Amino acid sequence: MRTNQTPRGVFVPASTPFHADLSVDGERFVAHCRWLLDEGANGLAVFGTTSEANSLSAGERMATLEQLIDSGISPGVLMPGTGCCALPDTAALTRHAVEHDCMGVLLLPPFYYKGVSDDGLYAGIAELIQRVADKRLRVYLYHIPPMAGVGFSLSLIARLLKSFPGIVVGIKDSSGDWKNTQALLQEFPDFEVFPGSETYLLDGLRLGGAGCISATANVNVAAMRALIDAWKTPAADAMQQQLTALRAAVQKFPLVPANKAILARLQGAPDWNVVRPPLVALSNEARSQLFSALGALHFELGQSVAVA
Amino acid sequence: MRTNQTPRGVFVPASTPFHADLSVDGERFVAHCRWLLDEGANGLAVFGTTSEANSLSAGERMATLEQLIDSGISPGVLMPGTGCCALPDTAALTRHAVEHDCMGVLLLPPFYYKGVSDDGLYAGIAELIQRVADKRLRVYLYHIPPMAGVGFSLSLIARLLKSFPGIVVGIKDSSGDWKNTQALLQEFPDFEVFPGSETYLLDGLRLGGAGCISATANVNVAAMRALIDAWKTPAADAMQQQLTALRAAVQKFPLVPANKAILARLQGAPDWNVVRPPLVALSNEARSQLFSALGALHFELGQSVAVA
Repeated sequence: MRTNQTPRGVFVPASTPFHADLSVDGERFVAHCRWLLDEGANGLAVFGTTSEANSLSAGERMATLEQLIDSGISPGVLMPGTGCCALPDTAALTRHAVEHDCMGVLLLPPFYYKGVSDDGLYAGIAELIQRVADKRLRVYLYHIPPMAGVGFSLSLIARLLKSFPGIVVGIKDSSGDWKNTQALLQEFPDFEVFPGSETYLLDGLRLGGAGCISATANVNVAAMRALIDAWKTPAADAMQQQLTALRAAVQKFPLVPANKAILARLQGAPDWNVVRPPLVALSNEARSQLFSALGALHFELGQSVAVA
Repeated sequence: MRTNQTPRGVFVPASTPFHADLSVDGERFVAHCRWLLDEGANGLAVFGTTSEANSLSAGERMATLEQLIDSGISPGVLMPGTGCCALPDTAALTRHAVEHDCMGVLLLPPFYYKGVSDDGLYAGIAELIQRVADKRLRVYLYHIPPMAGVGFSLSLIARLLKSFPGIVVGIKDSSGDWKNTQALLQEFPDFEVFPGSETYLLDGLRLGGAGCISATANVNVAAMRALIDAWKTPAADAMQQQLTALRAAVQKFPLVPANKAILARLQGAPDWNVVRPPLVALSNEARSQLFSALGALHFELGQSVAVA
């Protein structure tokens, strides 16, 4: 049985809007985050891969987080990404998040060196927890080996849970490998496992999963929340099929600019297409293809997809 | 024919020493850099992979660079690494290096997102050059796909050389693929190509290469410099064989802690073994094996290897 009291559901790695000069558009970001919560998001995993967090300096991340909280968004729904390559940056961002009462942090492993040992990753997390030294700290591991090139093995997780109970409390599994998600759910019953794609939302919930943290929640969060609220009903499988189809259509394109292209269209705000290098905006042709594919799925490019 | 007037030779990605509490030991770093120059280093590529640069915050990198220069080391021999994932960090570090009259910067591509396009990488460098906006800027590309997961293709380099002549002036090729180094040397005759390992030092020099930038130069720079000075003599091939043998012996171990273990032994300073997570120091057993292998090569663990 779960004994954790941490929030669950759909957490959105909110896209970070930029002005044409590549500076962060804080006002649009606040509005986007408010809209996501209004649509039913249980929380916001701001500064994730979809948010282009690693394309932001630590200072930009702290300033933007403060702007969100100052605008009235509760830190109790915020799970900012704080894992950097350099431990001093990770510690500064994590301490900042904790001091602002964020519900948790989503922790990438240091991702420059490849082939590093579990001992080295463990040492980094132990040092981080010691430096932050705050009982409010809740760490969610961010497992995304296809991007980071470094990940959290089951044996490393077991070790962390033993050493830091109540601090290391969950994981976002963006391995794309359902077998890994399943193993996490089975081996660590009191650990909050968020699949990194809504494709595994229902399968995850049926095994005790915590919800999902998904890129495409930026454009389809209401439908994800609807399934989370109805997953025990007969409608659940059909709802999952719709989610899976939409995800499949979007992820034929690079996910970060594809989400932004949809947001630009939904809001009639072309600036949403701006990404920071090394990413590039979708071409006009790719945008047309994406919108056609969404149209074929009855995704209304003026509101979130309807779930019958 | 070369028309560049940039420095050439052996550049050392100087190891960064830490105190036991993981803070940078600036005094030991200055002493190490002085020793490398005394041993014959033509320059110092500080804040590279071997330097654990990505485990340092931008602030630590700037403060440490200033300490080097303030201690009297000429910025004219310094090629600090400045490429980060976030463009604002890359721009801040690059501007800082240029304002301190460093001879150039060694630029990693943004390395979080994988599978990025040449267009995206080009846009980042173009934006960087525009933001720094200083005629003194000299960019050396840092091509190390085994670690970064992202690299510089020949066609991207051709495009950069065409757009930014006299600014993008060279490359460190740590692909480990001699065919790639050869192609760079053949296709871009006026481009300074530094192989990322001394294994290719002589082959590179014979094709017009600029020298090398190598991890193991931290412990064997005198021998590399000797070959650079004597590469046209009959002794060159034998000198290269000795360099290659030593490199092969060291790179059986993780290079960063292996270099530090050798420095700790050479200087009788155990603190040199300290690395930041996610790296780990060599075990006692690995150190013994490493020192035995070096002994078998007549590498004196009290001075640099003698080159007959």
